[in-house]
Amino acid sequence: MRTTVGIIGGGPAGLLLARLLHRAGIACVVLESRTRAYAEGRQRAGMLEQGTVDALRAAGAADRLDVEGMVHHGIELRFDRERHHLDFPALTGGRTVTIYAQTEIVKDLIALQLADGPPLLFEAEALAVEQPQSEAPVVRFRHEGRQRTLRCVWVAGCDGSHGVARNAFPAASGRTYAHDYPYSWLGVTAEVPPSCDELIYARHARGFALHSMRSPQVSRFYLQVPRGTSLRDWSDERIWDELAARFAVDADWTLRRGPITARSVTEMRSLVHEPMRHGRLVLAGDAAHIVPPTGAKGLNLAVSDVRLLARAFTELHAHGSARLLDGYSDLCLRRVWQATRFSYDMTRMLHAQPDGDAFDYRMQLARLRRITASRHAAAELAANYTGLPLSP
Amino acid sequence: MRTTVGIIGGGPAGLLLARLLHRAGIACVVLESRTRAYAEGRQRAGMLEQGTVDALRAAGAADRLDVEGMVHHGIELRFDRERHHLDFPALTGGRTVTIYAQTEIVKDLIALQLADGPPLLFEAEALAVEQPQSEAPVVRFRHEGRQRTLRCVWVAGCDGSHGVARNAFPAASGRTYAHDYPYSWLGVTAEVPPSCDELIYARHARGFALHSMRSPQVSRFYLQVPRGTSLRDWSDERIWDELAARFAVDADWTLRRGPITARSVTEMRSLVHEPMRHGRLVLAGDAAHIVPPTGAKGLNLAVSDVRLLARAFTELHAHGSARLLDGYSDLCLRRVWQATRFSYDMTRMLHAQPDGDAFDYRMQLARLRRITASRHAAAELAANYTGLPLSP
Repeated sequence: MRTTVGIIGGGPAGLLLARLLHRAGIACVVLESRTRAYAEGRQRAGMLEQGTVDALRAAGAADRLDVEGMVHHGIELRFDRERHHLDFPALTGGRTVTIYAQTEIVKDLIALQLADGPPLLFEAEALAVEQPQSEAPVVRFRHEGRQRTLRCVWVAGCDGSHGVARNAFPAASGRTYAHDYPYSWLGVTAEVPPSCDELIYARHARGFALHSMRSPQVSRFYLQVPRGTSLRDWSDERIWDELAARFAVDADWTLRRGPITARSVTEMRSLVHEPMRHGRLVLAGDAAHIVPPTGAKGLNLAVSDVRLLARAFTELHAHGSARLLDGYSDLCLRRVWQATRFSYDMTRMLHAQPDGDAFDYRMQLARLRRITASRHAAAELAANYTGLPLSP
Repeated sequence: MRTTVGIIGGGPAGLLLARLLHRAGIACVVLESRTRAYAEGRQRAGMLEQGTVDALRAAGAADRLDVEGMVHHGIELRFDRERHHLDFPALTGGRTVTIYAQTEIVKDLIALQLADGPPLLFEAEALAVEQPQSEAPVVRFRHEGRQRTLRCVWVAGCDGSHGVARNAFPAASGRTYAHDYPYSWLGVTAEVPPSCDELIYARHARGFALHSMRSPQVSRFYLQVPRGTSLRDWSDERIWDELAARFAVDADWTLRRGPITARSVTEMRSLVHEPMRHGRLVLAGDAAHIVPPTGAKGLNLAVSDVRLLARAFTELHAHGSARLLDGYSDLCLRRVWQATRFSYDMTRMLHAQPDGDAFDYRMQLARLRRITASRHAAAELAANYTGLPLSP
């Protein structure tokens, strides 16, 4: 097979890139290692920045999002048994966020791709990117039991943190920065209407808790748990009791309980790989960087990367200029580091620190108090949460 | 001896409290353990918030400050060989800071006190505060070779972090929060005009450096050094070379060198004692809290404490109401914790962390970059630096 841009990975980054390139008249092929059912079932984030919604609209992939997406005008912070609302439009000059599950975005993009898009191969497992520094890089992959070859002009690695794209960077050509957090998230989905209109971020001495939602009928919860926690230790009753304790404020608020339909434990990690380009191989999304989910930045960073990448390929295609591609890594990384900083700070501010002492705990409370007292501090959080500009 | 308010400590907190009480017609006595010459020679901070200048004016102690104080309109941040100016008036709606050394404030206050103020005893070493929970607390002290007694209605502990006042709190009645930083400051005074118009805060891989000034002819510098550093390891040449390396930006800027007239090493610590009142004993300044000098908050916090305390005593004296005294500790501590947070964050953002890795270093740079890119982030720094309101 031959194409202009070989895209490794059929997650939101790879699929959105394919749509944007297709609309710009640039040939591409998407290789997804799993089945369609698996790809459509992967549960991930669901908090979309305005820029992410705009990008999906520009790709013609927002019809269902525009109907089913839940626009949120803020978040709630809870600590010391108090509730504090952050009003995003008032703090940012009108910006909002939208709740729409990543898995739904993937379904929408797959349907479009199969209807009129460039080729999308499922169960096509990329094995290696070869000769990324040449003008004819090659992706070797396994499909329908055979080893095959995709000959490209460019290769886009959208294959996540365990994919092959990043491994094609020579060790000497880049650097990986990483930070592991000493706790994990226990995430559960429950068939019960949300007990709130907005996401609740709760800082409690027992640990962090987050109340989110998937739809008006489905709630999503996260609990800080020790790293290495086993799901077997968490009965439904224990989960509900722990959530109720961490969200507790006053008699006016009650946590609605319901059947738990999914549960998982996620480790928390920050990671940035520099640079994001090596020859004709470019990285986007989790392949280049990982953030802990506290700031809801993972999906949004992937989409921002892809927006810049599509713009760069379009300029090359339309005007023959590689200027934007040459600047892609540096420009992306400026935003990536800011999102990494924000995610790190949100995580450190809200989680009980197993290695922390009473002084650290008071620092967290002072930070939270300051956000509720200072318009600048609140506006800075809101600006980061609703999304920094493509070129921050 | 008898008085209404027995003040332990003749530093800026104790002396300013005495002036404010005197002007309100409240009797007091100040006990200072050292000689006048020693008290006037103690070198400390010199960056005054607007509220501190206002308080000194209200005490009638700003005549020389108003002539010799150097008004500053911002600070400069240096990192990555770049210079970034923070314009305080533009960011805060007109607020500035004033450079005037603490030792000069002490001289001014001592002169006023000896001229027309309440008694100020030098070489009067407080030994203990007795019966602080009774209506007649007593300060035992040594003066002119004899043990003496000061019988009070109230006792104000302004005797610093190693004083006797805090020891009069029963262990069960309070709590101390502390954080030690794994580095110290080497401070030097040099007979050379400053090489800058504003304070320079420099973040460098070799460590933090600060360029300050005492007057148009005298510069003051600080270098981050390992904890436990000996002055013997730092020749004048090594100090100047290290300063030049850490402040280095471009060919347009040169560090002026001159004779070094004083040098010392200071450890970096955060400490907060809760509560700040026990019965008829109240604490103010370093007796209750210590901050690392990075945020220039120590002297300003002491003055804010004293402003609230003088107001509370005045209300009691004029109207017989103990309401403000009852609320003193809680109100003070809100501001103290915010200043502690700011000092901690400034310290952590600007110092090379001996226990830090490459990821931590990039977080520092991302934070500094954000301050230079976001008006909200810059305004939040400026608001804290120029001073939060008395009731934040």
